[in-house]
Amino acid sequence: MDAVTLTAPRAHPTRDRGDAEALARLAKVDMAAVDALILDRMQSSVPVIPLLAEHIVSAGGKRLRPLLTIAAARSATADRPDADLTAALKLAASVEFIHTATLLHDDVVDGSERRRGKVAAHLIWGSATSVLVGDFLFARAFELMVETDQIRALGILAQASSVIAQGEVLQLTRAHDLNLDQETYLRIISAKTAELFAAAAESGAVGVGADPKTTSALRSYGLNLGLAFQLADDALDYGGSSEALGKNAGDDFREGKVTMPLLLAVARTRGREDAFWDRTINGNQRTDDDFRRARELIVGTGAVSATLDAAGEYADAAKTALGVLPNGEWKAALERLADFAVSRAS
Amino acid sequence: MDAVTLTAPRAHPTRDRGDAEALARLAKVDMAAVDALILDRMQSSVPVIPLLAEHIVSAGGKRLRPLLTIAAARSATADRPDADLTAALKLAASVEFIHTATLLHDDVVDGSERRRGKVAAHLIWGSATSVLVGDFLFARAFELMVETDQIRALGILAQASSVIAQGEVLQLTRAHDLNLDQETYLRIISAKTAELFAAAAESGAVGVGADPKTTSALRSYGLNLGLAFQLADDALDYGGSSEALGKNAGDDFREGKVTMPLLLAVARTRGREDAFWDRTINGNQRTDDDFRRARELIVGTGAVSATLDAAGEYADAAKTALGVLPNGEWKAALERLADFAVSRAS
Repeated sequence: MDAVTLTAPRAHPTRDRGDAEALARLAKVDMAAVDALILDRMQSSVPVIPLLAEHIVSAGGKRLRPLLTIAAARSATADRPDADLTAALKLAASVEFIHTATLLHDDVVDGSERRRGKVAAHLIWGSATSVLVGDFLFARAFELMVETDQIRALGILAQASSVIAQGEVLQLTRAHDLNLDQETYLRIISAKTAELFAAAAESGAVGVGADPKTTSALRSYGLNLGLAFQLADDALDYGGSSEALGKNAGDDFREGKVTMPLLLAVARTRGREDAFWDRTINGNQRTDDDFRRARELIVGTGAVSATLDAAGEYADAAKTALGVLPNGEWKAALERLADFAVSRAS
Repeated sequence: MDAVTLTAPRAHPTRDRGDAEALARLAKVDMAAVDALILDRMQSSVPVIPLLAEHIVSAGGKRLRPLLTIAAARSATADRPDADLTAALKLAASVEFIHTATLLHDDVVDGSERRRGKVAAHLIWGSATSVLVGDFLFARAFELMVETDQIRALGILAQASSVIAQGEVLQLTRAHDLNLDQETYLRIISAKTAELFAAAAESGAVGVGADPKTTSALRSYGLNLGLAFQLADDALDYGGSSEALGKNAGDDFREGKVTMPLLLAVARTRGREDAFWDRTINGNQRTDDDFRRARELIVGTGAVSATLDAAGEYADAAKTALGVLPNGEWKAALERLADFAVSRAS
């Protein structure tokens, strides 16, 4: 294959590629403090708990959600470099605990085999232990939040937790439904993914006593960023705009999971490919050849680029929300993160 | 068999039989308000959530834990009949949500088939949905607590939740361990059962602004009552002091669960019955005949009456803790509940 054809035309050729590194660098010291808190508070005298928790927590991932809490707190106090971040650090660790608890339960619910490049915890310690350690981390999150004495931040994260659980149930009951409309799909990912991004940023702002305008802007940034990330992830699962497949590409299809690119392709091939989709998604019969064919249809109908267009719009909305914040390195880094959310799939 | 021999000698022949009715009657109006709150807050736009929640919530059970929250709030305000119970009612509903969430997860973890006289929810809606609806109810509990604006009560129930989860994991890893010592067993039931009784009562006291002495007395009452209830339950599973078996008798043995009567009997038949215990508990091979034999050994070695003696001591400690409270109908009803905890197994 000709090297020139390796990359399909970009959905947004003018979009800055952005990066997540600028933010990670700025937040390095704060995130080290968050990591220390996480490590300290996942301890228990019941030996398997820290073992299992460490397995998933130390695998790390990007710590994107607590990073958002810190970034929100820092950007809201850009004019107060000596602002007290004690509460925000604890809220950031709480956010990561909530996220980790949902991952543990998700993997049990989906029967997933891998998580963060490692064997999923429930395959090592059993589903029962994974469920209970998830419960423990969730409870620990609330214990940590109580320490901040910030009942408003607590309310934000409690509500987010109930929204997430409802989103999970909604997804579970509609996961293989080819008739899912786009609105319902967006409702699912808003609840499952974007809500915690929103709450992470909002609670960081609340944790440093930001004014309502700033707080609401940061919440809006988080929500839109979360949607952009999820939609770009959905596109990446079919290779994004690149012809080269990423290492986890095909996972959604293999699990028969209905995502935006698939929904769009199903709609755009209505009357032509119904039997194929019915067999592979509703009928749960999927081979590697089927994935190749699904990908052809999804890329060929423009479903991937339409998904990336939508992701781009959410990223733009995220950046727009930041408008009310004073300019500075934190704001700039958040803008670059929004661009990166989409460009990594382009 | 002669009717006279149907009842074995009582462990505590002088103990008042007590009852749970006096308290239920006193708390009738408050508990109706709690029930209304529970029904209202378990709603969700995701249809399966209220369906599953109603299945387990409306099966009812004794609502013992929220009843404790109400009783604590009322007995701490015996001299203020017009005290505002809004927060206590919400805390009571939160306590029931936390309890229900743990039941849903427990049944998945244990693979239990029945709950509160009904088919267990996970057998109807699947384990995945049960786990996620449990998460939802747990999150809802915290949302409800946030509404009370009582960060201290929140801290009590957050800590209780993490203690419960740790107790569950500890039990899971030691459930079939015949070498479990009594101290570890008491640690497990303190965490799994008594902690929520303690937190339920304590948060009720905090919710009405009770003084530290009253609050701590009510916590102590709840903790000791929880231990008394659990030990009496353990005894009941082998028929208690009666020769007639209750309807759920044998469940613990059938699940190979190590409880106090079994631990005592194993210790008291050491060297004689090791092979029997090893096969039935460690080896997981149990017939109905095995249950009859286990029960003979457990009753014959006095393990049941020793368990009831221990339960009686905790019930007495619960009543003693109430000493600092002003006399009145609520205090009297709590005393009768402590007696009932044990006598129902005698």
